[in-house]
Amino acid sequence: MKEIILNVDGMMCEGCENRIKNILKTIKGVIDISAKYETGIVKVLAKDNVEEQNIKEKIEDIGFSVK
Amino acid sequence: MKEIILNVDGMMCEGCENRIKNILKTIKGVIDISAKYETGIVKVLAKDNVEEQNIKEKIEDIGFSVK
Repeated sequence: MKEIILNVDGMMCEGCENRIKNILKTIKGVIDISAKYETGIVKVLAKDNVEEQNIKEKIEDIGFSVK
Repeated sequence: MKEIILNVDGMMCEGCENRIKNILKTIKGVIDISAKYETGIVKVLAKDNVEEQNIKEKIEDIGFSVK
């Protein structure tokens, strides 16, 4: 298990947080997600075989950018 | 030319509005977009050959729902 921590641009409200959480829940192996628009930080608790690149792409697919 | 008007659930801030605008701009034939989180209304000015279904799907792909 590991925690992947990302800086995400574009979250401005709880709706933004929720859309990121909802899309990341669709990745197999993701266990828990925290997303805070105040800090721009997304934390993903996941099994070791989950790739950070996959998480970034999902976030970017729904219109946010990952630093 | 036509204007397609949709009721969208889940917009809660200007960031939400902007992500909807940005994804709809990628559809060929879309001329102008208005999205207001206060009302939930998205208006799309488009060429006649643009399909409403295509617009709905793009909005849903980024995590909103269309009534």
